[in-house]
Amino acid sequence: MKLATLKDGSRDGQLLVVSKDLTTAHIAAGIAPTLQRALDDWRFIAPQLADLYQTLNSGKARHAFPFEAARCAAPLPRAFQWADGSAYVNHVELVRRARNADMPETFWTDPLMYQGGSDDFLGPCDDAPFLSEDWGIDFEAEIAVVTNDVPMGATPEQCVEHIQLLMLVNDWSLRNLIPGELAKGFGFFQSKPATAFGPVAVTPDELGPAWDGHKVHRPMLCHWNGRKVGEADAGVDMVFDFPRLVAHVAKTRNARAGSIVGSGTVSNRDVSKGWSCIAEVRALEMIDAGKPQTAFMKFGDTIRIEVVGADGQSVFGAIEQRVVRGQKPR
Amino acid sequence: MKLATLKDGSRDGQLLVVSKDLTTAHIAAGIAPTLQRALDDWRFIAPQLADLYQTLNSGKARHAFPFEAARCAAPLPRAFQWADGSAYVNHVELVRRARNADMPETFWTDPLMYQGGSDDFLGPCDDAPFLSEDWGIDFEAEIAVVTNDVPMGATPEQCVEHIQLLMLVNDWSLRNLIPGELAKGFGFFQSKPATAFGPVAVTPDELGPAWDGHKVHRPMLCHWNGRKVGEADAGVDMVFDFPRLVAHVAKTRNARAGSIVGSGTVSNRDVSKGWSCIAEVRALEMIDAGKPQTAFMKFGDTIRIEVVGADGQSVFGAIEQRVVRGQKPR
Repeated sequence: MKLATLKDGSRDGQLLVVSKDLTTAHIAAGIAPTLQRALDDWRFIAPQLADLYQTLNSGKARHAFPFEAARCAAPLPRAFQWADGSAYVNHVELVRRARNADMPETFWTDPLMYQGGSDDFLGPCDDAPFLSEDWGIDFEAEIAVVTNDVPMGATPEQCVEHIQLLMLVNDWSLRNLIPGELAKGFGFFQSKPATAFGPVAVTPDELGPAWDGHKVHRPMLCHWNGRKVGEADAGVDMVFDFPRLVAHVAKTRNARAGSIVGSGTVSNRDVSKGWSCIAEVRALEMIDAGKPQTAFMKFGDTIRIEVVGADGQSVFGAIEQRVVRGQKPR
Repeated sequence: MKLATLKDGSRDGQLLVVSKDLTTAHIAAGIAPTLQRALDDWRFIAPQLADLYQTLNSGKARHAFPFEAARCAAPLPRAFQWADGSAYVNHVELVRRARNADMPETFWTDPLMYQGGSDDFLGPCDDAPFLSEDWGIDFEAEIAVVTNDVPMGATPEQCVEHIQLLMLVNDWSLRNLIPGELAKGFGFFQSKPATAFGPVAVTPDELGPAWDGHKVHRPMLCHWNGRKVGEADAGVDMVFDFPRLVAHVAKTRNARAGSIVGSGTVSNRDVSKGWSCIAEVRALEMIDAGKPQTAFMKFGDTIRIEVVGADGQSVFGAIEQRVVRGQKPR
């Protein structure tokens, strides 16, 4: 099924069930007021949502209304955990090669992961505000999974069953803040502003054969200012699959229901597939020509990210955001 | 006022108002069901909680019952943000000197901060489970503040007004996992297991003159296996005060209500004040004798952390935890 969150002025919005073709929606408040509340008691709530989904898809839901992604918050407008991996090691290797840095061999066997801020996510069509273009504004197109309760020490095999939902992610990054921040040794913080998510979170069955329990085997379509720049296959060159990433999260602590675990920027070795973030094309330019030629994003730029299924239908709906100048508080 | 969260089997527990002397408590469900819900609408809710607090302190609350810290979860059993600074730069310098690493000068002017996991906090008297003693189990005694909504770009001066509550923290750390994790460049993840919090969150006025709007001027009392090992003054050698740390969080994004911002391990240059984490005494031993002598914690060890006011009363109640062997899921 497909689930979304309608903006209603409250912090967590209202849970919606959305039809498979993304044309109609139905308030799910009678079942669970918010997606987090549904995830808190998923085994009890999910079958009820699935019933409503079926009724909606059959055109028999009594209070259905047209679905509009622009009226949606992120499926989880705020979450208790957002842990983002860097599973496409090809991307890491490229970026390092561009700056003549060796990559430790362990990067192929031990996932890179950072803890992201999760208190203030952006909706799929929300403007992305930044205080300065000089920060090096970049998109990052990713897939993420949402878990139920994962006990500390769960193995990757055990984590297969803990994946409840999948989402589309735009992990906004401020590239020019990253070198200074990583040099301090504590990882990303200011270089990772509010993350945006696609309109609907979907159960794995929505992907059909494109989900094998471990990876999403579909292209990640990225359009920057209307021009297609990327169609990398999310199922190719993903060195650490989702169950492995979830197990990484839970190695030394429990991960609780509603934890979001991301793949990191999708990246294929096949350069004809384009790129899912500007940092990658800049790395390729650096390696080819000795210097990057593509500039980062400017105020007014747009980014569109979407995954289309084998049936030609959008899986998550599209992320469609505009970069805007933020305002400091007075 | 003092607020706590009663364990009731639910994920977020029940909000309690606790008397100033920590002897009695009263369910606040009639005002707000949980602390997060109170923080979500603090300006409206806080005065009502303050009324109940006054009634409770005067002995006139009709359904008061004895307060027991052991029945409490963390004041926020899960939170949308846990950002932990390292404001006592003395500590950072010591640990680096012990391993012959230079400290960049910028560490004195630009706060170190990491994003912590916030989906599964430990209560003040909860056992702290770990799967291995070899991970280098260590406590870290800290203070944290809880904010309301902080807009992106807020200045430290503006952030003074965004601090709503203070809490006591035990930021459990797995020292032997840290070098490998920091070497990867993405910061802490597995080396920071579930964090524990003191029994009550307090409004700043509870600290009286010990809170100057920026720092807490009281000793951090640490007892390891019943032996006092630390009484470092939290107001001394804190290079970045709380408003500065909150502003750091909000430089490139909004911080939303209920964000927890920590000070990092309290540490004084005056070594007679002891230490607030084992890593620090090991660094001192390394510098003095060429090798650390104090081992990290073992299963069965206990840690007690408390801040006592000038009036001799416990401010937050005590964190009293036991290290236990965790179990992998079967």
